[in-house]
Amino acid sequence: MDSLFAPSSIAVIGASSVPDKIGNTILTNIISAGYKGRIYAVNPRGGNICGIDAFKNISEMGRSVDLAIIAIPRDAVVESFRELLETGVKSVIVITAGFKEVDQDGWLLEVELARLAESNGVNLLGPNCLGLINSASGVNASFATGNPLPGSTAFFSQSGALCVAVLDWAIGVGLGFSKFISLGNKAVLDEASMLEYLGNDPDTKVILGYVENVEDGRNFMKQAARVSMKKPVIMMKAGTTAAGARAASSHTGAIAGSDQACDAAFKQSGVIRVERLDELFNLAKAFSLQELPLGPNLGIVTNAGGPGILAADACGESGMRMPTFSPSTIGDLQRMLPGYASVYNPVDLLGDADADSYGRAVRIVGHDPVVNSMLIIIAPSSRLDLKGVAQAVVSAVAEVKKPVFCCLMGRKDSEEAREIFASAGVPVYDFPKQAVRAMDSMHRYAVWKGRPPRTYRTPQYDMDGAREVIDAALRSGRSDLVEFQVRDIVTAYGLPTPESDLARSGDEAVKIAEQLGFPVVLKIASPDISHKSDVDGVRVGLNTAAEVKAAFWEITAQTQRLRPDAYIAGCLVQQMASPGSREVVIGFRRDDQFGPLLMFGLGGVYVEILKDISFRLAPLSVEEAGDMVREIRSYMLLKGVKGGEPVDLEAITDVLIRMSCLADDFPEIYEAEFNPVLVSSDEALVADARLTVVELPESIRGAGPGTEDELE
Amino acid sequence: MDSLFAPSSIAVIGASSVPDKIGNTILTNIISAGYKGRIYAVNPRGGNICGIDAFKNISEMGRSVDLAIIAIPRDAVVESFRELLETGVKSVIVITAGFKEVDQDGWLLEVELARLAESNGVNLLGPNCLGLINSASGVNASFATGNPLPGSTAFFSQSGALCVAVLDWAIGVGLGFSKFISLGNKAVLDEASMLEYLGNDPDTKVILGYVENVEDGRNFMKQAARVSMKKPVIMMKAGTTAAGARAASSHTGAIAGSDQACDAAFKQSGVIRVERLDELFNLAKAFSLQELPLGPNLGIVTNAGGPGILAADACGESGMRMPTFSPSTIGDLQRMLPGYASVYNPVDLLGDADADSYGRAVRIVGHDPVVNSMLIIIAPSSRLDLKGVAQAVVSAVAEVKKPVFCCLMGRKDSEEAREIFASAGVPVYDFPKQAVRAMDSMHRYAVWKGRPPRTYRTPQYDMDGAREVIDAALRSGRSDLVEFQVRDIVTAYGLPTPESDLARSGDEAVKIAEQLGFPVVLKIASPDISHKSDVDGVRVGLNTAAEVKAAFWEITAQTQRLRPDAYIAGCLVQQMASPGSREVVIGFRRDDQFGPLLMFGLGGVYVEILKDISFRLAPLSVEEAGDMVREIRSYMLLKGVKGGEPVDLEAITDVLIRMSCLADDFPEIYEAEFNPVLVSSDEALVADARLTVVELPESIRGAGPGTEDELE
Repeated sequence: MDSLFAPSSIAVIGASSVPDKIGNTILTNIISAGYKGRIYAVNPRGGNICGIDAFKNISEMGRSVDLAIIAIPRDAVVESFRELLETGVKSVIVITAGFKEVDQDGWLLEVELARLAESNGVNLLGPNCLGLINSASGVNASFATGNPLPGSTAFFSQSGALCVAVLDWAIGVGLGFSKFISLGNKAVLDEASMLEYLGNDPDTKVILGYVENVEDGRNFMKQAARVSMKKPVIMMKAGTTAAGARAASSHTGAIAGSDQACDAAFKQSGVIRVERLDELFNLAKAFSLQELPLGPNLGIVTNAGGPGILAADACGESGMRMPTFSPSTIGDLQRMLPGYASVYNPVDLLGDADADSYGRAVRIVGHDPVVNSMLIIIAPSSRLDLKGVAQAVVSAVAEVKKPVFCCLMGRKDSEEAREIFASAGVPVYDFPKQAVRAMDSMHRYAVWKGRPPRTYRTPQYDMDGAREVIDAALRSGRSDLVEFQVRDIVTAYGLPTPESDLARSGDEAVKIAEQLGFPVVLKIASPDISHKSDVDGVRVGLNTAAEVKAAFWEITAQTQRLRPDAYIAGCLVQQMASPGSREVVIGFRRDDQFGPLLMFGLGGVYVEILKDISFRLAPLSVEEAGDMVREIRSYMLLKGVKGGEPVDLEAITDVLIRMSCLADDFPEIYEAEFNPVLVSSDEALVADARLTVVELPESIRGAGPGTEDELE
Repeated sequence: MDSLFAPSSIAVIGASSVPDKIGNTILTNIISAGYKGRIYAVNPRGGNICGIDAFKNISEMGRSVDLAIIAIPRDAVVESFRELLETGVKSVIVITAGFKEVDQDGWLLEVELARLAESNGVNLLGPNCLGLINSASGVNASFATGNPLPGSTAFFSQSGALCVAVLDWAIGVGLGFSKFISLGNKAVLDEASMLEYLGNDPDTKVILGYVENVEDGRNFMKQAARVSMKKPVIMMKAGTTAAGARAASSHTGAIAGSDQACDAAFKQSGVIRVERLDELFNLAKAFSLQELPLGPNLGIVTNAGGPGILAADACGESGMRMPTFSPSTIGDLQRMLPGYASVYNPVDLLGDADADSYGRAVRIVGHDPVVNSMLIIIAPSSRLDLKGVAQAVVSAVAEVKKPVFCCLMGRKDSEEAREIFASAGVPVYDFPKQAVRAMDSMHRYAVWKGRPPRTYRTPQYDMDGAREVIDAALRSGRSDLVEFQVRDIVTAYGLPTPESDLARSGDEAVKIAEQLGFPVVLKIASPDISHKSDVDGVRVGLNTAAEVKAAFWEITAQTQRLRPDAYIAGCLVQQMASPGSREVVIGFRRDDQFGPLLMFGLGGVYVEILKDISFRLAPLSVEEAGDMVREIRSYMLLKGVKGGEPVDLEAITDVLIRMSCLADDFPEIYEAEFNPVLVSSDEALVADARLTVVELPESIRGAGPGTEDELE
């Protein structure tokens, strides 16, 4: 990748001497950024372009370059690309737009470009992109206007417009970049490639990304999980709502995966997700300047009550905590401050605070062992010597050696103070909330980095048995599996089901019920009916022989009436759930980008009406399975409230892990749902299940897309 | 109030010639803002201060002024205030701090100031404030640094530090103010007084406020409801979380009311609530520049896909909609745009858009009758003539006559374009989300303003009967009312309860059960037990005489064992809820600032675990009662899902309204809870209830704090 980011020679194909033409902007950008290597220009008319003798075509140039930048009309791009390959080019940026994003011709051309690049081992950035900037090496291979300051933050973006806006904005606020990359259509190099490269880039401490869709979700997760253990990866994904996803798919020509899958992928690979562009940069500032805090406890020092309250609110809304100070801290503050100042957290120095009181308060609070990080709020007033306060805070901070953030309310006359903070590496925010949110992200990242390694459990089960059932179903052309097939698969995967048997008459139903013991459940048994509730085909809590017999005839007669063409095998008679057991739903569906997306929730209303569902991607670690269970709002109902027994949470995670194995083992299964799973205090029974399979091309069969090795 | 905001004469008590002293800053602010009236200065040392011959004391000044500003040490303030009253002063601003917010002495001094001001009919702003600025009249009676631009937005704030920061920030972004007011400790003039004054101020189109607590919630609601029908009132309240409320109470010395009560007050009086300071100003810009939209339908025109997706996401997260354009609009767009541009909403003009295509697209989309408002997104690039685009958009907008917002991504080289938009009154935002959120607020405000008038229903009930029960309870020294007392009050308020009777033995229980009809519920009856579940004192679904008898002895024996000192009257035998009925909880508790806060939710888990509760303040209109029911997440369960019968929603709102009457009629009732209320398809029965009363001073008794007249 060095040929792309730090090339020893660059050729601009489509260089131009006409100002404001893309081929001119790129060339002048390269030159004005102080590029040290050889520069070549190619233009059909030749001549002198920006002081460089241009070649008329690539073959006239006739030599190999590290990096070629193509900015010529679309229909000529593939031909030029081929010629460049012949010269032995190592990396190519295609600036030109009009490919996959516009029409089918463009799509075919892009596929050809990708094929050529991959088969020749050439790095291809774009097409339809702005190029890239490497501040450390003085490379500006883009048609963006303006050179960013050097810095330790890397930024990549799928959207060119956002690149321009962000660059512009960052120059304004003085945020520097190590690398700045416009990904465009991501024909070859995508967010995963960037994560891999930037993860190893010594100039980059923090990685920021903006994406609209993730093409290869599994590879993205693999790279993100690796890189985020080394440095923070902060990303914004657009197209999170249905409206946004529609707009995204018409823009990028790609159908975005579900936002739940993307959210799960970010969570499981340690990516810090933000919802707003400004937050992306608030976090970048925090992570690039300060060390991670050792805990959530924040000490606040302010000279004004209002902003202190806003900071406290921000703590209340996040995972940050405002601890009670140690008695000695409170004593020290009481001795130094006037009687009416607040010596509790937040410490309020009041309006007559000066540099000296700031310095002393920061030292006292900062040395308190209960405090993990600090926020210093400064509300300017005409009598406050801002510069003096900044100097006092900075020298106190140097002693404290804990993460410190500053909130400077108001921008006027604060230039000197801001410079003092900047040179001491103290991030400065305009509003308390921004600072607290940034700290909260750092704390959560620290927790994530320090978590124990994930453990994967491989349960025993009969995969071959399940394979036989699925093959049989596929041979018979079924997509929705029949009850007994599903049951066989559930059993093959080592999951218990309630005892049950098929009754073909009312009398048989009674006999089975008597064997199982009352009360029982009756369910319609028909290969043609996959949603039993459509025909009202379930009766629960049948207590007597008479009730069972009546229910049998009622269910079968009603089904016959509603679905005259359905084959009715009879009714399944099933053991009732033990009293105190609760119903949960465990399922998965296959996301196009990220693979099997597992879901968990409480049965009935909780999943269907309240949408109280947690999601994770397979393969599931034991810890992630536990997180899924604890994450739902109704978790308290499983733990047992108001005298209810707690249910067997271990048994639930076991079902989740086995479901995850099933999803990974059989790419043929498009979606599956165990609903309900009856969980009591000592077991989890799969009482009913649905499973949909699809025929796969031979090449994919048997190659489950992910294993734990891949992700660890 | 004119003597405060547009005084014909001002005296500064504590004027100083020493730069950076508050008394100096105030005087120079008055002079430099170009004040046209008479200015007097008072300072014990006399002399010439800023060109004014200072009096040595107030009696030497010896004449009446419209406005006096006091900036002298705390302990001298009351004396000076008295002297000013003798001269016949009309309004006073006390800048001096050190009152209620610091200690008891300060608190007493502040009470004395308030008493003097109120008994003499003098407007008192502060103490502990920055003063005020009236841009229209050239009055800067504050010690803030910097004069804001004139504008049509008024701002008031409880926190002085936020005043400084906001003023500073507003000057930076060019936002102007009509009035700028620092409220400080609000000894007399508070947010309600400001709403009343600003509501009638012809210079003010939009009112912004920042508060930490609202002292007199009822008066605030009254003023806010009146004013918000005339102009938008946008407020931020700090101290929303428990952590923030703790910080606020230590700062302002006042216990903040609950955030739910404040939120309900804002909702019921049409106040637009924001969570972030920057949003306050994003909304001010929108409301002050544009007319309200006639509906939620937003048409978006962009030259870049990424920002278009972000805008669509923001619509998806808010109440804004992106309609499908009319066929003729789509046809017109297709004719003017290249084939690969998106002619659907958002319209993507693509990177090669120019002034002409922007102008034409804005006209076409803007004239579509399905579109209520528009967002124009402009992503700059080196080839885009920003100024030309701005001119084209502005002239198209002038034809369209619908609310139009602009998002200009990036600030560089956009000065001219920004000025063109500013002079045409088109608000410009940096990011799409800000613009969409502002539009959503305008739309919601328009809906609120246009809603039909609220209707209040006064049901028939026996208030005297309830009065007797409550008086009896108070005489006996009880705070938690006994079951039969609560039942009498419920009945007096016209609410049905399930049929029931007291059984003193198992046999009596069986007899009553046979009269009521099986199944029945048994509940422990004891005046000493208000939480029956503490002694497991309820049995439901008893189907036979044997079950009833067994339950009677079980419940009473167990209660005797657990609470040997409790007097056990026996068991209440109650009719069972009809099948298909659902349990809801309806209650209220009295908020210190806002009065009775009504709550509604589904029984059991929904209220207790999921906290799925809606809140409103009494008195409740019919519409607000309906909103409470519809607002909970589990509302679908009442409407009936999956074959369940819908319940009688009218009956629920009737209980809510009667509960609201009860709360308003009896200030002695501190809190009440009807739990459960059993709602079936044709009635709502109050099956159990709890009620807590407190002895009130004679002066308050019988004066229910609010009636519908007060709020309408």
